[in-house]
Amino acid sequence: METTIRYQPIGIIRTPFENIGGMPIQPHGAATTEGVIELEPDLLPGLKDIEGFSHLILIYHLHKVKGHKLYVVPFMDDKPHGIFATRAPVRPNPIGMSIVKLKSVEGNLVRFVGADMLDGTPLIDIKPFFNQFDNRPDAVSGWLDEKKNQEILKIKSDNRFDTNKNPGINRCK
Amino acid sequence: METTIRYQPIGIIRTPFENIGGMPIQPHGAATTEGVIELEPDLLPGLKDIEGFSHLILIYHLHKVKGHKLYVVPFMDDKPHGIFATRAPVRPNPIGMSIVKLKSVEGNLVRFVGADMLDGTPLIDIKPFFNQFDNRPDAVSGWLDEKKNQEILKIKSDNRFDTNKNPGINRCK
Repeated sequence: METTIRYQPIGIIRTPFENIGGMPIQPHGAATTEGVIELEPDLLPGLKDIEGFSHLILIYHLHKVKGHKLYVVPFMDDKPHGIFATRAPVRPNPIGMSIVKLKSVEGNLVRFVGADMLDGTPLIDIKPFFNQFDNRPDAVSGWLDEKKNQEILKIKSDNRFDTNKNPGINRCK
Repeated sequence: METTIRYQPIGIIRTPFENIGGMPIQPHGAATTEGVIELEPDLLPGLKDIEGFSHLILIYHLHKVKGHKLYVVPFMDDKPHGIFATRAPVRPNPIGMSIVKLKSVEGNLVRFVGADMLDGTPLIDIKPFFNQFDNRPDAVSGWLDEKKNQEILKIKSDNRFDTNKNPGINRCK
């Protein structure tokens, strides 16, 4: 198998959430919650023309997660599913993805709406959301399709994935 | 700034593409191109219930990219843009994301359609595409909105991001 993959954070995400409990579980549940990306100043030129996009894909490190689980009962169901059939944070590689709404760019500060991550989250990448590439309106969403959309928007995180209290398996070498 | 983030590949992606030249630039341009995920056997339980999803989000390491650029002329335009306003591979952290169509799961082999990555690509994460969360049909896509969709589907990769021939900046410590 390949050797370890190493990334350096490109910045830090500031949000109102210091703890996992009570955090929205997806940007749709955080429709008015603002976050700010503090981009590393040397990467500032990389933001050129980003203001033309309404939505950004943020890829970030779930820095508070320790270890992983292969079966989880996600927030939106009461049955266990394989970790790769959920968006639960206790993944073999704790990497998060959120599609957020761009609000403004001021120097190296990128303000957005839809913050569903912890304050201090290390950011790995920003990708523009491309209308032509990233929508799949005909997608079938397995167990989640049985849930009502209105219910999903109301759900907040609890502490079930707090790996300080409930540690997972550690694959790190 | 945070210390280095370390991930272990969860598997390898097999595709027909041994070289960057001629590769489709997005899953939409690879509508009939099949790929296979060879998942690490110890992670097999994590696939439970994944067959219920029509689309998967693959997050992977762009293992052939060496160094990055802050301004790039992407395949779909003739003007330079900031790297974070494009999907070009020469990113500060060379991480790729593709939304692919799930075909079948046979043990630890996950077959999909929409392969737009190199053969041997280390896979970092598989997330289910959630219809309710991941579509943004009203998104505005900056410079890309000016391009015609038909043109985009025909574009193939050339060697402009081959960092063996044209090295980028290296931030790795």
